[in-house]
Amino acid sequence: MSDFHGVMPYLVSPIDPDGRVKDTVLARLVVDLIDAGVHGVVPLGSTGEFAYLSREQKERIVAVTIEAAARRVPVIAGVAATTNDDAVTQAKRYRDMGAQGILAVLEAYFPLTDRGVESYFTAVAGATDLPVVIYTNPSFQRADLSLPVIERLSRVSTIGYIKDASTNTGRLLSILERTEGRMKVFAASAHIPACVMLIGGVGWMAGPACLIPSESVKLYELCRAGQWGKAMRLQRPLWAINQIFAKYNLASCIKGGLELQGYDVGLPLAPQEPLSNDGRAEVAEVVKRAKEAMGMVND
Amino acid sequence: MSDFHGVMPYLVSPIDPDGRVKDTVLARLVVDLIDAGVHGVVPLGSTGEFAYLSREQKERIVAVTIEAAARRVPVIAGVAATTNDDAVTQAKRYRDMGAQGILAVLEAYFPLTDRGVESYFTAVAGATDLPVVIYTNPSFQRADLSLPVIERLSRVSTIGYIKDASTNTGRLLSILERTEGRMKVFAASAHIPACVMLIGGVGWMAGPACLIPSESVKLYELCRAGQWGKAMRLQRPLWAINQIFAKYNLASCIKGGLELQGYDVGLPLAPQEPLSNDGRAEVAEVVKRAKEAMGMVND
Amino acid sequence: MSDFHGVMPYLVSPIDPDGRVKDTVLARLVVDLIDAGVHGVVPLGSTGEFAYLSREQKERIVAVTIEAAARRVPVIAGVAATTNDDAVTQAKRYRDMGAQGILAVLEAYFPLTDRGVESYFTAVAGATDLPVVIYTNPSFQRADLSLPVIERLSRVSTIGYIKDASTNTGRLLSILERTEGRMKVFAASAHIPACVMLIGGVGWMAGPACLIPSESVKLYELCRAGQWGKAMRLQRPLWAINQIFAKYNLASCIKGGLELQGYDVGLPLAPQEPLSNDGRAEVAEVVKRAKEAMGMVND
Amino acid sequence: MSDFHGVMPYLVSPIDPDGRVKDTVLARLVVDLIDAGVHGVVPLGSTGEFAYLSREQKERIVAVTIEAAARRVPVIAGVAATTNDDAVTQAKRYRDMGAQGILAVLEAYFPLTDRGVESYFTAVAGATDLPVVIYTNPSFQRADLSLPVIERLSRVSTIGYIKDASTNTGRLLSILERTEGRMKVFAASAHIPACVMLIGGVGWMAGPACLIPSESVKLYELCRAGQWGKAMRLQRPLWAINQIFAKYNLASCIKGGLELQGYDVGLPLAPQEPLSNDGRAEVAEVVKRAKEAMGMVND
Repeated sequence: MSDFHGVMPYLVSPIDPDGRVKDTVLARLVVDLIDAGVHGVVPLGSTGEFAYLSREQKERIVAVTIEAAARRVPVIAGVAATTNDDAVTQAKRYRDMGAQGILAVLEAYFPLTDRGVESYFTAVAGATDLPVVIYTNPSFQRADLSLPVIERLSRVSTIGYIKDASTNTGRLLSILERTEGRMKVFAASAHIPACVMLIGGVGWMAGPACLIPSESVKLYELCRAGQWGKAMRLQRPLWAINQIFAKYNLASCIKGGLELQGYDVGLPLAPQEPLSNDGRAEVAEVVKRAKEAMGMVND
Repeated sequence: MSDFHGVMPYLVSPIDPDGRVKDTVLARLVVDLIDAGVHGVVPLGSTGEFAYLSREQKERIVAVTIEAAARRVPVIAGVAATTNDDAVTQAKRYRDMGAQGILAVLEAYFPLTDRGVESYFTAVAGATDLPVVIYTNPSFQRADLSLPVIERLSRVSTIGYIKDASTNTGRLLSILERTEGRMKVFAASAHIPACVMLIGGVGWMAGPACLIPSESVKLYELCRAGQWGKAMRLQRPLWAINQIFAKYNLASCIKGGLELQGYDVGLPLAPQEPLSNDGRAEVAEVVKRAKEAMGMVND
Repeated sequence: MSDFHGVMPYLVSPIDPDGRVKDTVLARLVVDLIDAGVHGVVPLGSTGEFAYLSREQKERIVAVTIEAAARRVPVIAGVAATTNDDAVTQAKRYRDMGAQGILAVLEAYFPLTDRGVESYFTAVAGATDLPVVIYTNPSFQRADLSLPVIERLSRVSTIGYIKDASTNTGRLLSILERTEGRMKVFAASAHIPACVMLIGGVGWMAGPACLIPSESVKLYELCRAGQWGKAMRLQRPLWAINQIFAKYNLASCIKGGLELQGYDVGLPLAPQEPLSNDGRAEVAEVVKRAKEAMGMVND
Repeated sequence: MSDFHGVMPYLVSPIDPDGRVKDTVLARLVVDLIDAGVHGVVPLGSTGEFAYLSREQKERIVAVTIEAAARRVPVIAGVAATTNDDAVTQAKRYRDMGAQGILAVLEAYFPLTDRGVESYFTAVAGATDLPVVIYTNPSFQRADLSLPVIERLSRVSTIGYIKDASTNTGRLLSILERTEGRMKVFAASAHIPACVMLIGGVGWMAGPACLIPSESVKLYELCRAGQWGKAMRLQRPLWAINQIFAKYNLASCIKGGLELQGYDVGLPLAPQEPLSNDGRAEVAEVVKRAKEAMGMVND
């Protein structure tokens, strides 16, 4: 029985100009994040540009991540596809490579019925015996997970978690109420983590944690300890980072921020544009403020 | 200096089949809500069907409310218009009638620039010296309040509050951060009240509080006392009521629920449809569960 | 039996800074349009800012229009309301004042069911024995007319026309096919008039015809005569005017353009903004090109 | 210098349950369509489920189509990608295989700036010297082509055509006016082909032509001959087919319809659902009516 929880950074996918995965950079990032206390790592989430990579690049990203994580924390690999067959193939492959969990993302071009959506996630869940986190992002995707579908999927044995990337925090509480404990909820960067922890969430999966891992872990611990006042004093400056991510392309933003911190992760894949100079300055400022807030909370 | 806070029910507008305001029913509802501990009442909010009433009906609603409230709690009257002139006229009229505050709503048919939106709220704020709550609901309205406009409006001396009826709770924290204490935030029924209290909100303005006033007040008090665990035990069953309101027409839902509680508030104005039998059963069930939860928290 | 067809300009609503209708300006505009050959006039359409006027202003607009039109062409008065009762009152009033037809617009704040939408239009249609044009604009309104509702409304005896202000021209053909001759279709400014005439439309109701009435009538006549090649040579430059209207606020744009032509119609009601200097230059340019095209087609 | 025009069916992609392309079925469909008079064929359009196929499947589809077409009509191969690099690779590959043109589709997960959109299409256009049709579908895609971007792309030497799959026919005329002859316009199934021909379009690219190729060619010829009255008598029943496609999943609908006509094209890829029994009956009915209309026009 899995117990995924806590701060799970969405990893960026460092790719060099010739399309090769920058193994060393990625491995160092994974090790540093784990040293900073994160509770798991997620390659090939949205921040990981899953929609922009070839099959070969994706497999390499997962392999490098698993090796660098060295089973110190779980690796939850992103599976994203438009067809059930492709998703099943990916899930099996990542399981064979040693992933401890699957983040299941449904891509769609044409609208789908609820039944179609359900068949996709059921297929992924049946592909392996790994625990599955189902994912929905109504802002960027054409197929959303309705409450009735979530309820039915919560009864699939390997599906135990959901990450809802909408901005609608109330929906998370509705999911928790509706699935009566069968589905644990992770926040996304569009939600205020402290609020999601208050209503019963188990943590968050998001790109910003790449830039502020120890601050994120501290916030998580304060929430878990029920120190809500102290948690909010840290949460407020950390929220500025999430706002920045909503303003810029997510991958550009985290890649730009990691470059500032000395990780040579390279640019987002064209035609996505790199973080602008203004964007870099904004990221630098909000990260600085987050680190200062951390100091104050620790006092 | 005003200090609006706490539970502020949006009142329904009881109208008889001939278009007359049902004075006695409205007055009894106001008195009962105040007896139950609410911190203010708001005639002519969205639940009050402001968009469906004539000038004469609206004035009567405000007059009856003010008289019934008898200055025991503040009456914050809804001003909603498409033109600056109409809004200014309404605000002055309600001030003369004895309202203690204005809830300012901008209706629009054609899209507006930020400058146009700002001119409207500035006009309402300048019409009287009453404290003003600005309102935005991107789901039902064509003109939204952008963060830069909110920031500028927070510097207008009489504008001290905002009610944001989007489902995006993160935006409320962004507003709080951006306005640095000049703007207090009320939650709407689309937000989880306990979350908004956690991040620094001062209360909520919403229709559901008509049906569960003492439960809402209890939840508010638990949040104010920092008893977040206990607050969440009450919040979870109360959330079911907010979900119901998102499912049905708001006015139909509250009017239907109040009828069940013995208030003869009548039907929503046609072509809005009355709450269906299924809807009535759902409302009855969630109100019952909320009252049970209240009992458990009090133990 | 009515036979509404051809070019039906949506009139602007000239209001002075004190809120009084500028009777003389409006009357002169009506007379000049009729002299230019238009087949009807429509006070209180969207371009007529129906959503921004008081009951008194609206009645005055209709009265002045009817008097100026002097039964030379039909006056089709806009009825727009959120409630059935208000709409019925307006329709009866305009009938009593001498209008020859009703343009029925449904305003809504809360979403409506198809049944609610149908009840509104049925109520308007039953209020008088005047022929009714039903109107829908999914871009600016919360309640749209679905094809099944249109089909049912086409069986109401007084409802004989529809104006669909979506940009979806294919929907007009679907309506024509679905209602099998019971519903005549008018184009809006978002459609290419020549296309709508080709598929069986009977004309167009739109603001731009205020600025180019004789050019619009010429285009209509070429279409009616089946001279499609010549029609398109005129249509192409005329289309530039419709594009401008999609770019700016409709009322601002037509009011600004009429000011340029010597009609002192005043400004759109605040917080709507007047046409900018750039906008005025653009309007002047496209009107000039339309008039030149007219010369070429007439040669 | 290319001269793409006329009826260009979007081919379905017949795939067997093991994921293999059904070569024989696809080849027969291509030959039959060309025998029926179509002016080109387009593998890997939206109806061709480009978003659901692997690299290997896509290459096989293009190869089989090119061989079956035997240079009797141009083959315009769909290139769809999220990255410039992937798109360039596809375009070169299809050029080497013998395609006569490229249909360029931009997939996106994160929003793009106009500059990013432009860089993608410029990259595809520069990849080969084949003529390029740029494609946009704001209903299903996250990245739209704005008018200024279209205007700039019209100056790229190999970009000579656009297919706009919005429902907004007026936009097509705006594109034609804005690009002053540098960009030819194809209609999509959301537009009424006769209308697009009237305003200056050169034909249409769409799935429905797979089911009614000779009727589509007849309609095209009537439009080209300026026989607009006769064209509309055929257009009206043909429109019912486009309406059906808007109602059901496009690929399901055409695949289902072709099965009815004896082409064993198989099912759409899961989790897309096959055409329902009701859908099949509807498709059968509208195709029958289209063929009857053809008979009447030929009389």
